Amino acid sequence: MINPFFNNRGPFQIDKILELVDINNKDLNYKGLIKDIRDLVTADVNCITFFHSKKYKELVKHTKASFCITTKSLENDLPKTCMPISVENVLIATAKVTEKFYPEAVIDNFDNNTQYIDKTNFKKIVNYGKNVLIGSNVKIGKNCNIGNNSIIEKNVQIGDNCYIGSNSIIRNSLIKNNVSILDNCVIGKKGFGFFPDKFSNIKYPHIGLVIIEENSEIGCGATIDRGSMSNTVIGKNTYLDNQIHIAHNVKIGNNSIIAGQVGIAGSTTIGNNVKIGGQAGISGHLKIGNNVEIAGGSGVIKNIPDNSKVMGYPAKNIREFLRENK
Amino acid sequence: MINPFFNNRGPFQIDKILELVDINNKDLNYKGLIKDIRDLVTADVNCITFFHSKKYKELVKHTKASFCITTKSLENDLPKTCMPISVENVLIATAKVTEKFYPEAVIDNFDNNTQYIDKTNFKKIVNYGKNVLIGSNVKIGKNCNIGNNSIIEKNVQIGDNCYIGSNSIIRNSLIKNNVSILDNCVIGKKGFGFFPDKFSNIKYPHIGLVIIEENSEIGCGATIDRGSMSNTVIGKNTYLDNQIHIAHNVKIGNNSIIAGQVGIAGSTTIGNNVKIGGQAGISGHLKIGNNVEIAGGSGVIKNIPDNSKVMGYPAKNIREFLRENK
Amino acid sequence: MINPFFNNRGPFQIDKILELVDINNKDLNYKGLIKDIRDLVTADVNCITFFHSKKYKELVKHTKASFCITTKSLENDLPKTCMPISVENVLIATAKVTEKFYPEAVIDNFDNNTQYIDKTNFKKIVNYGKNVLIGSNVKIGKNCNIGNNSIIEKNVQIGDNCYIGSNSIIRNSLIKNNVSILDNCVIGKKGFGFFPDKFSNIKYPHIGLVIIEENSEIGCGATIDRGSMSNTVIGKNTYLDNQIHIAHNVKIGNNSIIAGQVGIAGSTTIGNNVKIGGQAGISGHLKIGNNVEIAGGSGVIKNIPDNSKVMGYPAKNIREFLRENK
Repeated sequence: MINPFFNNRGPFQIDKILELVDINNKDLNYKGLIKDIRDLVTADVNCITFFHSKKYKELVKHTKASFCITTKSLENDLPKTCMPISVENVLIATAKVTEKFYPEAVIDNFDNNTQYIDKTNFKKIVNYGKNVLIGSNVKIGKNCNIGNNSIIEKNVQIGDNCYIGSNSIIRNSLIKNNVSILDNCVIGKKGFGFFPDKFSNIKYPHIGLVIIEENSEIGCGATIDRGSMSNTVIGKNTYLDNQIHIAHNVKIGNNSIIAGQVGIAGSTTIGNNVKIGGQAGISGHLKIGNNVEIAGGSGVIKNIPDNSKVMGYPAKNIREFLRENK
Repeated sequence: MINPFFNNRGPFQIDKILELVDINNKDLNYKGLIKDIRDLVTADVNCITFFHSKKYKELVKHTKASFCITTKSLENDLPKTCMPISVENVLIATAKVTEKFYPEAVIDNFDNNTQYIDKTNFKKIVNYGKNVLIGSNVKIGKNCNIGNNSIIEKNVQIGDNCYIGSNSIIRNSLIKNNVSILDNCVIGKKGFGFFPDKFSNIKYPHIGLVIIEENSEIGCGATIDRGSMSNTVIGKNTYLDNQIHIAHNVKIGNNSIIAGQVGIAGSTTIGNNVKIGGQAGISGHLKIGNNVEIAGGSGVIKNIPDNSKVMGYPAKNIREFLRENK
Repeated sequence: MINPFFNNRGPFQIDKILELVDINNKDLNYKGLIKDIRDLVTADVNCITFFHSKKYKELVKHTKASFCITTKSLENDLPKTCMPISVENVLIATAKVTEKFYPEAVIDNFDNNTQYIDKTNFKKIVNYGKNVLIGSNVKIGKNCNIGNNSIIEKNVQIGDNCYIGSNSIIRNSLIKNNVSILDNCVIGKKGFGFFPDKFSNIKYPHIGLVIIEENSEIGCGATIDRGSMSNTVIGKNTYLDNQIHIAHNVKIGNNSIIAGQVGIAGSTTIGNNVKIGGQAGISGHLKIGNNVEIAGGSGVIKNIPDNSKVMGYPAKNIREFLRENK
């Protein structure tokens, strides 16, 4: 399961799902209950999935999903065990279906079930400041600290020996042991994801989490958005400086060091032992290898193989960049 | 009226105004009450305006203002209905006169007339978190949400169906219907405007507002400064990602999409349907047309016509940039 | 003294110090009490210092320190009055010894001795908002304002006539007279300093302060980290716009103007009357002269002499940059 927190409202009869995307089941005559919506890889029998680009042709072959939102032109790539639901715009249809299963994953309204920590049992085990709020479905380990005015909203697990600073907000997140999250952070809000529409954009659900692995540190003013259909992950012993923005579905490896004001766009994957200088930016959907060094201020717009050192905008080999820019 | 909120302390006798800029009215023998200070376009009869650069020569011809702060070398451009008040430094003189009319528009001290929302009538109509504060001269529509620790300071109107996150501060702003403002934002503070002085810079008044039009979304950690002599405007259905800075007097059109960590400097105008990638920066006093796409990380230092796609620093045609930077 | 606030736990017997770095004093037979750890310049007799790079060869000649953490290959550069303590990794050993003297300078846990301001004597002299917290060892001058939800944590001195906004956090800082610090700032937290380690990085102590000199203004969302072995300083009448990050040990001169989203990396020194455009970034350990102008979006990676105007990434003479980038 991607997210242990969001409450799946399913299963739904297939007819209820088809209605959502303006398809009448009379001709198709599909039957059965759909229990969840998942991506091609994690979908199981009786799940619905989606397939919108030839890029995922190899993945679609092996999907176990019973139904798939796709287009007329792609439906022949589906395995026989998977029934096509062909629509004009796969992503908008997927958003609508996901919202049916996970209605509270679309809008991040504040959790108005929070309580002051001293009215909860956490008061016995946490070292806490003034005005600390705790939402529903929260677990906190031993020997943790939570600073003044911080809000642990709903769906948060915090491990042992963690330091949460002041004025920070955490929701929909798994924080492992020995993690420090400094002041003024916002961790686990929905990502910047929507389908543009002329009058009012259509926000899509974010059912992923933020996972921060052991021994990591997140600097002041960070925003780390939770994933849409997968998680956003910060690896073990990875340190982020102040004012960093990590978009939805980003995955950062272990032992990485990221300097101030860096921004990483959605769905990019970053390896282990990576060093990123201040204010560097990395575009979305890229793969940055292990042991990569990215100089401060660089703009990375393509994949970077392991052990590379890059600089510039667009970022290239650092020696080449410095030779050309003496 | 630029700002329905700031209290105009006028009208003032012209002598009181001339005193402020060290001019003795004996020779000029000007008479009358001045009711307001405005820019060349919006000034009316019995207003004072200012004119400090030949750039505005066409505008000054048609001003209805009765008085104008200007310099000896520019005073011949004024229409006959407008009396010149010639000084050495037009902008410093204008700051002094504006401060006379709008003394509370210079310093943004916190509003210490705020009250906890549950001591106000808003408790009946707003869905609110803990520790929410409401200042003076605030209106809030139906079906709104305000998260924990947020401060709606003085001079704010919020429409219907709005979501205000937690730890956000809003002042001197008009928020229309269906707007979302996420966590940790500061909306409506005075802009970064002052006249440098060797010992203590002279801050100038900001009598503009921030206006956020219907259906827009402002991401976490945004700073949107109010305007000095005009408003700062975010258009309809325009979405801003996290950690964005919008300076004073900026105007952004409708249906635009602005990614994380973008910064837009003062008085720049941006059209409709514009897409701006993450970390891009746009200099002040520029005009960016409709349907423009600005790649992430770009630095825009000149006007961009409609329908252009640009990239780089300084930003240029995207194809040209990519060809030169393979 | 670098920091009047951090409590020196010394003096310690030299044996206790040598134990920390796994040296047995049997052969060395060093004697005496060590009263403090300081850098080469500020160390006095009976202090311990550190020397890890030939770069500091001139400074080491004149150090008054009685002991010096260094390596075998550097120990011959020490003056005869200074006893070498040779280790493999000077910086890690220095971190351990500094932590012995200043244990609370390593981790920035929130101060849980803060009290609501209306339970302190400050209620008589400060104009304050709701939910303002004051920590231990705080002094505040006359005629100051502190906005809602702000936290003046431990070890802070604020001068006269200061404006502190709402939702800001200040610790380990000297704020002089007539300073404005706007909303959502974090001033004085430890810098981003640690020695990478495969499983769990070793954070080093930050015993420096943040000093903000008279008449300065710090915009919303700033992070200004305190220094490690020296102070972080913002000069007189220097103005910072919103969302700026100033790393540890940075020193900025007087009358400088720094636009939004600028980042300055650790230990860089910036002169007087410097202007830095929005989103510019400056690498660490550089010297930027007086009267320098750095265009918005620039990336500065080397020292810049007085009176220069630079632009680009890497930043170069502005005319040259614009000629090459028409």
